[in-house]
Amino acid sequence: MPQKHFGILETEALMNSPADTSHEIATGLSVQEAQACILDRITPLETEETGLAQALGRALAEEVLANRDLPPCDVSAMDGYAARAADLDSAPITLQIVEDIKAGDTPRFSLQPGQCARIMTGAPLPSGADTVVRVEDTRLLENDRVEFLVPAKPATDIRLRAENMRKGDIVLRAGEEITPAAVGVLATVKRAKIKVTRKPRVAILSNGDELEALNEPLDPRKIPDSNSYALMAQVQALGIEPVLLGIACDKPDELAGFLERGLEHDVLLISGGTSVGDHDHVRPTLTTLGVTMHFWRVEMRPGHPMAFGTTKHAFVFCLPGNPVSSMVCFEQFVLPALRRLMGHRRLFRRTIPVRLAQAVKSRQNRVEFVRATLSRDASGAYMATPAASQSSGDILSMTRADALIVAPSGRNDLATGEIAQAQLLETAIWQHTPDTEKYC
Amino acid sequence: MPQKHFGILETEALMNSPADTSHEIATGLSVQEAQACILDRITPLETEETGLAQALGRALAEEVLANRDLPPCDVSAMDGYAARAADLDSAPITLQIVEDIKAGDTPRFSLQPGQCARIMTGAPLPSGADTVVRVEDTRLLENDRVEFLVPAKPATDIRLRAENMRKGDIVLRAGEEITPAAVGVLATVKRAKIKVTRKPRVAILSNGDELEALNEPLDPRKIPDSNSYALMAQVQALGIEPVLLGIACDKPDELAGFLERGLEHDVLLISGGTSVGDHDHVRPTLTTLGVTMHFWRVEMRPGHPMAFGTTKHAFVFCLPGNPVSSMVCFEQFVLPALRRLMGHRRLFRRTIPVRLAQAVKSRQNRVEFVRATLSRDASGAYMATPAASQSSGDILSMTRADALIVAPSGRNDLATGEIAQAQLLETAIWQHTPDTEKYC
Repeated sequence: MPQKHFGILETEALMNSPADTSHEIATGLSVQEAQACILDRITPLETEETGLAQALGRALAEEVLANRDLPPCDVSAMDGYAARAADLDSAPITLQIVEDIKAGDTPRFSLQPGQCARIMTGAPLPSGADTVVRVEDTRLLENDRVEFLVPAKPATDIRLRAENMRKGDIVLRAGEEITPAAVGVLATVKRAKIKVTRKPRVAILSNGDELEALNEPLDPRKIPDSNSYALMAQVQALGIEPVLLGIACDKPDELAGFLERGLEHDVLLISGGTSVGDHDHVRPTLTTLGVTMHFWRVEMRPGHPMAFGTTKHAFVFCLPGNPVSSMVCFEQFVLPALRRLMGHRRLFRRTIPVRLAQAVKSRQNRVEFVRATLSRDASGAYMATPAASQSSGDILSMTRADALIVAPSGRNDLATGEIAQAQLLETAIWQHTPDTEKYC
Repeated sequence: MPQKHFGILETEALMNSPADTSHEIATGLSVQEAQACILDRITPLETEETGLAQALGRALAEEVLANRDLPPCDVSAMDGYAARAADLDSAPITLQIVEDIKAGDTPRFSLQPGQCARIMTGAPLPSGADTVVRVEDTRLLENDRVEFLVPAKPATDIRLRAENMRKGDIVLRAGEEITPAAVGVLATVKRAKIKVTRKPRVAILSNGDELEALNEPLDPRKIPDSNSYALMAQVQALGIEPVLLGIACDKPDELAGFLERGLEHDVLLISGGTSVGDHDHVRPTLTTLGVTMHFWRVEMRPGHPMAFGTTKHAFVFCLPGNPVSSMVCFEQFVLPALRRLMGHRRLFRRTIPVRLAQAVKSRQNRVEFVRATLSRDASGAYMATPAASQSSGDILSMTRADALIVAPSGRNDLATGEIAQAQLLETAIWQHTPDTEKYC
């Protein structure tokens, strides 16, 4: 296979660097094999304490217990009247209002026959009361009397003590993602500070003599460095603020300096300079710096030249130089790695079944991630339309894509109308219209 | 209808406050009517300049043009040899290598018959060359000669000048969300600073004598204020850092002071104290402070008591006091409002079709948003299982929900196996396993 031809060349090249004679480097892995190779080597980072205002999106690193019963006692579920069901087995009937109870009050009286209490939602039931009648089923009379228009059964419209939370119960478990609702739960049990898994320190390096930095004047012969910034944003989207190391040219010593700085971080992302041309020094230099390379080259498109290595304390991802390839490889490999380091259990982007608006070719040797836009058919089912350009250099097409259709390898081509799985990209979290338009 | 009974009571109550005699307040709106009532009054805020590192998730407020051609000239799409197709109409044939061209180089020679140039991916084609042959289709010989094993056609493995981006073309439009790919595009056209729509200033206030602040000692008779923090996190999830005003008790003057402070912001979120009991002063106080109330009470569950008002420069949302009701109302009404203020076009949460694992009741008068977990059936289609507890006080059930099933009103109940739409909540952006497991 052509890939293997490159493989041999490269293995020979690496054999010349003594540090690497130790082991074989896997090549031509499947996406799944590559993900397993990476994730098998990753465990969550150590924990740290954080405040509630900084907790969103972090992974909880402790078990959280309820510190109280909620509701704290039997309370009314409605605005209305607390009464004795025995007084209300028939209607209409008139009772005397002995007090007015709102949330947070402590009832002063125990209800006697013929008595009731006006009560607000969430207010504690007075002793003697065993039911609540909604205000709309009553009519207020003079002299603090109220007429009940319907009979009442016991235990109606009452929220029982501890029905939502019982003191001592586990409310959140270690590893849970801290969502807005979880922040609400933490506030409920009065946890202003909590243990979470710390975030990885991530460094980003671009590689290549042809690259022009953002702050450099425009040179028409050069290629602007966009990967550093797209990767920065992909990392930021996970709640991590990365360090941009800049652009390393192909001079081995200078490159080594950049890589050494990068390896001081938990994760080093390098884009470009990792294909197999004679001019690529990245992987050999990493090897001489003590990085163990576990694989290079994954059978996917875009993103074929992709390598992964480790030191005792750092993870190194060599991403392709093409802008789209770099982003797609990040989605498949770096994103789940960073999420596992952060202590999360849900590591991968949500995928949804989509009906293909156009046929998608299945490649013999590689999975293809096909940029596509989403739409709905009459039944509300999702349709995916592949973008006209699937060029790995066409980053514009990524800004217009909602999803990546996963086109399996070595299958029959996917026909128009067939169902495929599509990974939802950032923008696809949102949609233009609510479905409530149709329903509500 | 019972709702209307409340409606009359409340309208009477409000009529007593002179500021409000001006207009009728709509009540019992549908979710769609309420969303329209809100969004019709909202336009994006003014623009501001931001740096690329702070741009992610913002809405672009200007049109961005390409400042260069990409590729800047015809370049090789492969590592291999640039040659004259005329020399390679048959194979095998041997050509002389005259130079070595990598990305960023300027070719020194024009290819003559019998000559070729070794060329790297992205490197400029030398003049005379009209095709590229991949290295795996060649065999390197001694004395800088290379044997081509296959014939070559013109224009093979060449990326043409400007094929990805042409100088002067529009690359991003005003209103586009700045995704990681868009950040890459902005870096490509060397825009270190860009115009975006500014973020709204959001204030959050909880209301109710029964509430206990996070920093207060535990009082078993009280209810912890969780809504301030759940709302804080829901706002943070949109990239906005809100201001927490704290807890207002039911004393009218104190409440007025809190509300005045809140109205100095673009958006004021108030949770609790807005049901229709005699003890609720929030809406009357807002009215006396010059807030025009547009509706209160939306026919939905959870979240029935929900009000919306405006001043010349502020939007006020009165959310229910129950934790789940507050969060669900935020999702349906506040979230799209904040996204529109931020200049976004995609205002609503993504919904997907799901097959119901259990029947869901359709209410006569109101849409129900049913907490549910997602799973996949054998075919890869989504199943939604409603949570056991749908209590509006049970915030724990929100931490375990992936989605909200939208149960339309006034329909037949949704049967097991029927398809419904489900709004994906925060956690549902991620899933445990990649679909590549099945395919790659």
